[in-house]
Amino acid sequence: MASDDDKEPLLSVSVDASHQFNEKNALKRRRCPHGNDAPSSKINFHDKNGLESSLSHPDLISAREQLSLKRVFMYFAIYLSVGTSCFYLVRHQIEGKKTNGVLDAIYFCVVTMTTVGYGDLVPNNTLSKLLACVFVFSGMGLVGFFLSKAADYIVEKEEILLVKAIFTREKFGPTEVLKEAESNKAKYKFLTILTLLLVLVTVGTIFLYRFEGLDFIDAFYCVCATITTLGYGDESFSTEGGRLFAVFWILISTICLAQFFLYLAELYTENRQRLLIKWALTRDLTASDLEAADLDNDKVVSVSEFIVYKLKETGKITEEDISVVMEGFKNLDVDHSGTLTSSDLMLPESTQAQN
Amino acid sequence: MASDDDKEPLLSVSVDASHQFNEKNALKRRRCPHGNDAPSSKINFHDKNGLESSLSHPDLISAREQLSLKRVFMYFAIYLSVGTSCFYLVRHQIEGKKTNGVLDAIYFCVVTMTTVGYGDLVPNNTLSKLLACVFVFSGMGLVGFFLSKAADYIVEKEEILLVKAIFTREKFGPTEVLKEAESNKAKYKFLTILTLLLVLVTVGTIFLYRFEGLDFIDAFYCVCATITTLGYGDESFSTEGGRLFAVFWILISTICLAQFFLYLAELYTENRQRLLIKWALTRDLTASDLEAADLDNDKVVSVSEFIVYKLKETGKITEEDISVVMEGFKNLDVDHSGTLTSSDLMLPESTQAQN
Repeated sequence: MASDDDKEPLLSVSVDASHQFNEKNALKRRRCPHGNDAPSSKINFHDKNGLESSLSHPDLISAREQLSLKRVFMYFAIYLSVGTSCFYLVRHQIEGKKTNGVLDAIYFCVVTMTTVGYGDLVPNNTLSKLLACVFVFSGMGLVGFFLSKAADYIVEKEEILLVKAIFTREKFGPTEVLKEAESNKAKYKFLTILTLLLVLVTVGTIFLYRFEGLDFIDAFYCVCATITTLGYGDESFSTEGGRLFAVFWILISTICLAQFFLYLAELYTENRQRLLIKWALTRDLTASDLEAADLDNDKVVSVSEFIVYKLKETGKITEEDISVVMEGFKNLDVDHSGTLTSSDLMLPESTQAQN
Repeated sequence: MASDDDKEPLLSVSVDASHQFNEKNALKRRRCPHGNDAPSSKINFHDKNGLESSLSHPDLISAREQLSLKRVFMYFAIYLSVGTSCFYLVRHQIEGKKTNGVLDAIYFCVVTMTTVGYGDLVPNNTLSKLLACVFVFSGMGLVGFFLSKAADYIVEKEEILLVKAIFTREKFGPTEVLKEAESNKAKYKFLTILTLLLVLVTVGTIFLYRFEGLDFIDAFYCVCATITTLGYGDESFSTEGGRLFAVFWILISTICLAQFFLYLAELYTENRQRLLIKWALTRDLTASDLEAADLDNDKVVSVSEFIVYKLKETGKITEEDISVVMEGFKNLDVDHSGTLTSSDLMLPESTQAQN
């Protein structure tokens, strides 16, 4: 029961995976890649089964992400409702520039959870101070949770629009656009978030300039102090309309900037990873490399052994990943041949049940 | 030459790799598995070399990390010197509670770069406001850079001490302690940072209580508002001694909390990854799986093909990783046998030069 609970989000995946089974079951005979036809065999693998099996997985992942996106938004709604209620109830223990009671409570809640903390409204009593502590920690956690999952998912969806906008339709069909977006993921996600960030900065500056009566420099300064969560508090949203705008704008723009830095790091890491793989591939192969790469000790390094060895060398996969999967391999290898063939599938379930 | 530039940080690695090359031993004769005309090739696998090649990589990685750790600290030093100088020069454009000129400048710099932004000192002129904007963005980037690299490196070193403290020496020798730390990395890094964080919160609270004259609740509230970078500014460091303490304490504790959340996310991701691998290993293998996993089309799924397939299924490695390494494989496979054997090492360099 307990383990069932753990796997709950994975259940839908299992159902879909079994779907594949019905679609294709016969192994087609193909030519062995001796000699010069290695490239064609690789293409064959991609076109036929590779694509299908690799397509189904992202689909499942995205289905799960959509599910967790909903959950994240639900958490946000709960957090904001509870926070607003709490701060509304202790509103007499909060001092500073006040406008509308409920609006101030939700504004204080957002300013706290995003760690902007202007200080235009501050708790002045033990209860409200401790409440602020509780909400800033949980808010940070929630924003972090959002950053790692939901924001990435949203940006990925938007990114395709950007790629479409950059490449005219004449040159690229929808499939090419998808491919282009896929192969330069980190780059386009970065460009998407940069575009969004520039829009948010512009909108915020214009709003503060027009509706909060700040001059242009002060408006821009307040925008910078807010999206970075610096929040000195010398300039903030003091009108009722301003605070209503701030609730949405602060939430979106602070998350957007944090995500921007995350993508910057991702872009950097990806480039490093590519350089590392490049290095691992260009350095001379030695006899000891061949030995270390030869997982099944047949004195020959196959393409997959080479992949495992090189990805381990670059730190992409770890010894632990390998040993866990190897354990699973041994359980599936019912006839103990050291390889998996269709005969391993044929053997009675009772033999397999021991895993 | 241009590509040489790219590899600059990897140079030391290349040198070490070529070292291995010289140690390569005489190869014994053995028949080529696909029996073609290439000079018959034999491989003599030496335990000594294999071990060396797998050991050298982590060592090199850690050497590089130590290098980048130094670089990160240099960036911090440059940032703080430049920031302090700038804010000292515009000190008359900063208003608020003042103590010592230089101390206030460095305090303001740290409060800005960590995005705490109490607001006890605020820029009141165009130049100082724009300077604050520049320093908050660059500070955020720098702290993020530190978080992703150096902090992790430092925590990893400390973590071993914690693991040692948890497991008594009687049961575990130094090697076992290292192994224990290695296999539960995420867990022990999390525990290490949690311990550090509790110490920092305690020290900060006691300091504010004793030297800044705050009552206990206020001291704790100020600590929470600071480490989360909330910084309302109703309570802050106002004395000279307090600000000196704050410069170090704020820098360390804000980074510590951010790193804490990073490890929490890592722990969560790792658990999910394990669940995903578990799922990928327990679900029934189908004939189409076998076909998709069979990279070299020999109708047999070897252990390494299984590893590649399962790690791709769980999203640990991508199609792109695989195709890049496959490209490298093709270049190394000089005799086009579809496998790497010692004969591929023997062929003249001129043949290999085409990559």
